Amino acid sequence: MFDSVTIVGVGLISGSFSLALKEKGMVRNVIGVSRTEQSIQKALELGLIDETLPLEEAVLKSDLIYVAIPVDVTVPVVRKVLDIINDRQIVADAGSTKHSLCSALADHPMRRRFVATHPMWGTEYSGPEAAVKDAFRGRTCVICEKQKSDPDAVEAMEKVYRRLGMEIAYMDADSHDMHAAYVSHISHITSFALANTVLEKEKEEDAIFELAGGGFESTVRLAKSNPSMWLPVFMQNRENVLDVLNEHIAQLRKFKSCLEKENYDYLRELMENANKIKRILK
Amino acid sequence: MFDSVTIVGVGLISGSFSLALKEKGMVRNVIGVSRTEQSIQKALELGLIDETLPLEEAVLKSDLIYVAIPVDVTVPVVRKVLDIINDRQIVADAGSTKHSLCSALADHPMRRRFVATHPMWGTEYSGPEAAVKDAFRGRTCVICEKQKSDPDAVEAMEKVYRRLGMEIAYMDADSHDMHAAYVSHISHITSFALANTVLEKEKEEDAIFELAGGGFESTVRLAKSNPSMWLPVFMQNRENVLDVLNEHIAQLRKFKSCLEKENYDYLRELMENANKIKRILK
Repeated sequence: MFDSVTIVGVGLISGSFSLALKEKGMVRNVIGVSRTEQSIQKALELGLIDETLPLEEAVLKSDLIYVAIPVDVTVPVVRKVLDIINDRQIVADAGSTKHSLCSALADHPMRRRFVATHPMWGTEYSGPEAAVKDAFRGRTCVICEKQKSDPDAVEAMEKVYRRLGMEIAYMDADSHDMHAAYVSHISHITSFALANTVLEKEKEEDAIFELAGGGFESTVRLAKSNPSMWLPVFMQNRENVLDVLNEHIAQLRKFKSCLEKENYDYLRELMENANKIKRILK
Repeated sequence: MFDSVTIVGVGLISGSFSLALKEKGMVRNVIGVSRTEQSIQKALELGLIDETLPLEEAVLKSDLIYVAIPVDVTVPVVRKVLDIINDRQIVADAGSTKHSLCSALADHPMRRRFVATHPMWGTEYSGPEAAVKDAFRGRTCVICEKQKSDPDAVEAMEKVYRRLGMEIAYMDADSHDMHAAYVSHISHITSFALANTVLEKEKEEDAIFELAGGGFESTVRLAKSNPSMWLPVFMQNRENVLDVLNEHIAQLRKFKSCLEKENYDYLRELMENANKIKRILK
């Protein structure tokens, strides 16, 4: 499908994306671009990329340029790429926020060659070693502002993500950021805060290590996530994240109030209401 | 090792316990006791138990009586069992709280035949269908007030849990309840509250279903837990749970304040501190 694909950033998402394209026979050659020499070496070793080149040279040789780097550095990189591509090449990003990116690129003369995508998949790990085969499968990929991209570019990206086993959902950038705050960003905040809670209260680290069951590990695992990746997400999606964080604190205060007042009927109601999530998550 | 074992309650924990004993060839006959006829039928079907009897008859026939029912009904059942056993039989519980149980049983003339245990393992599911093979492995089992139980009873339970692949930790009941609040009970509260947050904010349930990635599922999965099992835990461990819940709300307010004031240096610090959990969880 593609002769050459450039991945900008050689980490969890781009590395898994590359592995999947190779596995499906959808690309002949993958070029890696990264400012971190160590990551490039690791990505070559792991077979995530076939070669490395400076950004400009890589772009010239590629049908698709896939940008998966922290969202605070995505705009300048995508802009630079759009400055030098021709109108048969495609640029796509994989970032967790879309409003500020789409706004920043709105007036670029090559905007229509860019497809704003967010494959809703990830783990708490980062870097090329975190890349896994068979990522993305069964998850949803959001495409934003479809109408601002050339139909051939959108179709190519839809085809790629579908071959990776993803469903496609279409949204404007604002809706995406709001939904992403609810179903992804807040989970990271609560995990980070839960880790800090337990680290603060439980001075006996051995006890955490020995006693933590699967439940704790599961609720706290996102606290291992990379701050350099998530801080810019929270900054760019600040208003939505604050909105849902305020609601979450209000919900926790209901639990607190029930316990303080020994209002156990209402506490049971709160728990039964939470059980409704079963209906929604398989 | 045992000829007959009675499990009181035929659910996630007792069912998994029975499967493991059978798998290891540590029991010939497992008797199930439950007030719920449907659960008994299911447990028979699934091979979790070999027969069912009323509590008194079951106890008379058993070397070990293993009580794994909601903690609000554990005291009367264990007391009833202690009333009728002889001094070669063993009673153990598997409950998530220990202070109120151990206090209530302190003066029972047969207290020394009781071993207070808490295998730190579970899932968000309950009932006999939730029982799984190879549960418990690699986790820790806490034994409380070891010195109040007969050495032969403690040794028998240690041997059982070790054969199931568990490490044993010893604690007084108060320490157990405090640690359990930190590494288990708070995770349930945060998950319940997170589910309510998202259900409240995200009116488009389809969006949750489509967009929720692995991260959200992981942080929210405990919200599927059974209120009849967890409400009594929160009631009995109210003070510890409130203590850690207050700390958790304070930690979340730090995130909120950083976002409100756009104090991103401190926000990064909070996230980096949370990353320390990596050191502790493998």
